[in-house]
Amino acid sequence: MTLADRVWHRCRLATLSPHREGLGVVEDGVIAAKDGIIVYAGPKADAPTGLDAAERIDCEGRWITPGLVDCHTHLVYGGNRAEEFELRLAGASYEEIARRGGGIMSTVKATRTASEDALVSGAQRRLEALMAEGVTTVEIKSGYGLAFATEQRQLRAARRLGSENQVTVRTTFLGAHALPPERAGDSKAYIADVCDMIPKLATEGLVDAVDAFCENIAFSVEETAQVFARARECNLRVKLHADQLSNLGGAALAARFGALSADHLEYADEAGIAAMAAAGTAAVVLPGAYYFLREKQTPPIDLMRKHRVPIALATDSNPGSSPLTSLLLTMNMGATLFRLTVDECIAAVTREAAGALGLFSETGSLEAGKRCDLAIWDVERPAELVYRIGFNPLHARVFRGQTT
Amino acid sequence: MTLADRVWHRCRLATLSPHREGLGVVEDGVIAAKDGIIVYAGPKADAPTGLDAAERIDCEGRWITPGLVDCHTHLVYGGNRAEEFELRLAGASYEEIARRGGGIMSTVKATRTASEDALVSGAQRRLEALMAEGVTTVEIKSGYGLAFATEQRQLRAARRLGSENQVTVRTTFLGAHALPPERAGDSKAYIADVCDMIPKLATEGLVDAVDAFCENIAFSVEETAQVFARARECNLRVKLHADQLSNLGGAALAARFGALSADHLEYADEAGIAAMAAAGTAAVVLPGAYYFLREKQTPPIDLMRKHRVPIALATDSNPGSSPLTSLLLTMNMGATLFRLTVDECIAAVTREAAGALGLFSETGSLEAGKRCDLAIWDVERPAELVYRIGFNPLHARVFRGQTT
Repeated sequence: MTLADRVWHRCRLATLSPHREGLGVVEDGVIAAKDGIIVYAGPKADAPTGLDAAERIDCEGRWITPGLVDCHTHLVYGGNRAEEFELRLAGASYEEIARRGGGIMSTVKATRTASEDALVSGAQRRLEALMAEGVTTVEIKSGYGLAFATEQRQLRAARRLGSENQVTVRTTFLGAHALPPERAGDSKAYIADVCDMIPKLATEGLVDAVDAFCENIAFSVEETAQVFARARECNLRVKLHADQLSNLGGAALAARFGALSADHLEYADEAGIAAMAAAGTAAVVLPGAYYFLREKQTPPIDLMRKHRVPIALATDSNPGSSPLTSLLLTMNMGATLFRLTVDECIAAVTREAAGALGLFSETGSLEAGKRCDLAIWDVERPAELVYRIGFNPLHARVFRGQTT
Repeated sequence: MTLADRVWHRCRLATLSPHREGLGVVEDGVIAAKDGIIVYAGPKADAPTGLDAAERIDCEGRWITPGLVDCHTHLVYGGNRAEEFELRLAGASYEEIARRGGGIMSTVKATRTASEDALVSGAQRRLEALMAEGVTTVEIKSGYGLAFATEQRQLRAARRLGSENQVTVRTTFLGAHALPPERAGDSKAYIADVCDMIPKLATEGLVDAVDAFCENIAFSVEETAQVFARARECNLRVKLHADQLSNLGGAALAARFGALSADHLEYADEAGIAAMAAAGTAAVVLPGAYYFLREKQTPPIDLMRKHRVPIALATDSNPGSSPLTSLLLTMNMGATLFRLTVDECIAAVTREAAGALGLFSETGSLEAGKRCDLAIWDVERPAELVYRIGFNPLHARVFRGQTT
């Protein structure tokens, strides 16, 4: 029995191993995989003997990172909001945009009327853009259906994207994203609807986690807590759109329910960040939405550092507030706009992003036992991945041991 | 004799013709070309007869814009500044960065020691990133050699990039970019050097225009005027890095010399903008540098509109202040950060960018007599080109009548 079926050699590794400093760099590295799982990742000098029988890939000194993880997207939706964008720049008022069918409800309408095939093919192009930059794991949320059948269709489309592409897809049920028109003025009834949907969708295997949008313009802390309680009864982990536009105590709420992550967090306070640290809840910061919405308040990165809350970065890819499909650009925005360091940015789209999905036992670092998900880069130093803007230096992408 | 050798039909055109409103839209359009020149671009209904013999390309309803024009780049240089970027984010002081060889002089050093081949191959990847988004014309500046032989080498590399790729390259001599170390403290002597270089490099056919960096940290108005006077003696048009970090009257200076463009312009005042209007000098705004340097003062777009100064957008692709190689993203930044409208952004990378290079008689719109440089897009409406972030919907690129 061979030890490995494929070996990458003459490479420099950013292992992101938590047992190594910084990026966990190995200068003269080797990665060996068998059946899509890493069996060795580390210095050539320490590599086990018996790797010679495997297929050998000469990386000619290139850098390898774990395959990238985009841990917060709304990739599946109908239509787009380019017209609304255009009208707004031309000076149209919010009333006029609403009258012409803008805002999140335009996406809900377009998503509800789209077939599952149409949802898949629309998202396919966006997913390909992410994959072209070395992304091997993507989270996809529902939340534009806002009724059982349409939320189900969105989640099924997400699952299909995972099965039809060389990428791991994690689904998140975000029924509590907005109040649907048929429940206008009655959020209590809609929250009951959402709580009903959770076990049904979970039973179909469509839900890896449950998310909610806790904000003055969305759902209250109490309503969110109801949804989260129901999720926990169904043995589902939760995530939260928290403290993006105001401080409602979302970070603390997420922590109270042991959330995998609290996301956005521009207005989170120290008590909230400390609670996240105690609960092991990751911070997912989303500079694309900050940029696109021209926000002024950055998330409290220093508090996250002080309390050692893991920081992940994600595209938040969505038609309304972040029509962004580049995780490399997201890293640059994390550095430029939020002043994350290079090491923090790279960890934020690998190790910490995997953690924010509860997947760090499977991916997000180059370590034995993990999936062999790799991104191989034509760069001289990892900092180039963060420094460049609108440039893709990916040389090759490996998904579960296979070059794709 | 056939009227045309190639015809694109079933397409929607954003002609950017100055004789049409807005983007100059034609819904059911046809473009016909012969020997790489457009012989007809307009409604199918008005198309000349006799196009049937040509090769016919069915665009299936896609949008066609003129091939994009990136009218301000420093694409040819040695090294990169990723390490400096990393150090700065990690909190290093300017002194420490300077001590470790950061700043523009690190690029000058790396450029001076690079061979012409190395300069070409380094820039080739960046040029390919631009071309992949439909760019068919690129301006490339010198300015990292700062001595005759090295400026000459940079300009030769730029010319080679033009001859080795399906793209039009315009070269700009930017000797007056910074003071080289061997002239430290003696800008008078270096300006004399620059004035000496101009006719020599021009005689070699390496100079399409002359540029200078007029700023407190670079050259004064008087020094810039000397360089411009020399350029005019050599029958060369000028461009200017003007009023980026402070108001030195750069816009007015550019106008005084009938500059093709004044670029950056964050601190330009109304008198300067009015002078540009009177002189027919275009404004080239560079949101990539504004973003990367985290500037707070946006260029006076309203004044440009009021005085009808044409507004172009460009990447400013360079290693120090704008390591950006996406003109699509530049459009989004123009809209998001500078509040340009969708129509302004699209005109800014086609018609107005061609004008800023003195090339509008050759490219930048879809009109008979122009080069057949086309970008064919998989979008439902042109606004999507500006709205999306980090997504490339290019379907095909046509350079002088040939699909590339």
